[in-house]
Amino acid sequence: MSETPRLKLHARLYCGDEIAMGPGKADLLDAIGREGSISAAARAMGMSYRRAWLLVDAMNRCWAEPLVETVAGGSHERGARLSTLGETVLQRYRALQDLLAKAESSEEYAFLKDGVRPEPLPSQSE
Amino acid sequence: MSETPRLKLHARLYCGDEIAMGPGKADLLDAIGREGSISAAARAMGMSYRRAWLLVDAMNRCWAEPLVETVAGGSHERGARLSTLGETVLQRYRALQDLLAKAESSEEYAFLKDGVRPEPLPSQSE
Repeated sequence: MSETPRLKLHARLYCGDEIAMGPGKADLLDAIGREGSISAAARAMGMSYRRAWLLVDAMNRCWAEPLVETVAGGSHERGARLSTLGETVLQRYRALQDLLAKAESSEEYAFLKDGVRPEPLPSQSE
Repeated sequence: MSETPRLKLHARLYCGDEIAMGPGKADLLDAIGREGSISAAARAMGMSYRRAWLLVDAMNRCWAEPLVETVAGGSHERGARLSTLGETVLQRYRALQDLLAKAESSEEYAFLKDGVRPEPLPSQSE
């Protein structure tokens, strides 16, 4: 890889030891809203159905109300949609991410970025 | 644990696949500046000398010039200090972290925080 130096800002909201909301969970909510089911969202994101289900389950246990509502009965292909709270949480989380993105245009970041090599030097023996 | 919901904002600066600067490396720089050697800094942070050395080595390979200068020869207890660039990078990174901290007083964060439970509900079987 030959990438330019880059800053990554992550906003994670914790509930006990669980991550109630973070970049990956927000992307999954987007995909569920777009695809209409957990399984289709998992496929679109290249993750297993089980992994997606666990992420949804964690979110639903972390918030005052579930963020994702599934249609009772049926198979994995059954529909899922964002609850009203799910829509609102996703929207506010994206707004919070926009606030963070502003830090990327800060003077501090510009200085730091200029000092980082595109690739690290090879490791020396200890 | 019974913790209140909390937001964690991490700023990480990447150099290829290495983390050039992040919260842990910044704390290590602080400790080296305070303690005067890599081994004393490692002890103060409860990490092994080898782990601290690897973090310092990664930083020194990621930036235009080394951030930590060690006194040649001697044992692990030999002195280490921040270079001029090291001091400046640490200062700018702390300023960047202060920018991020402002997001914690945002309306978006206040809304999200109110919706998260102190602890997740128990996991349901699939």
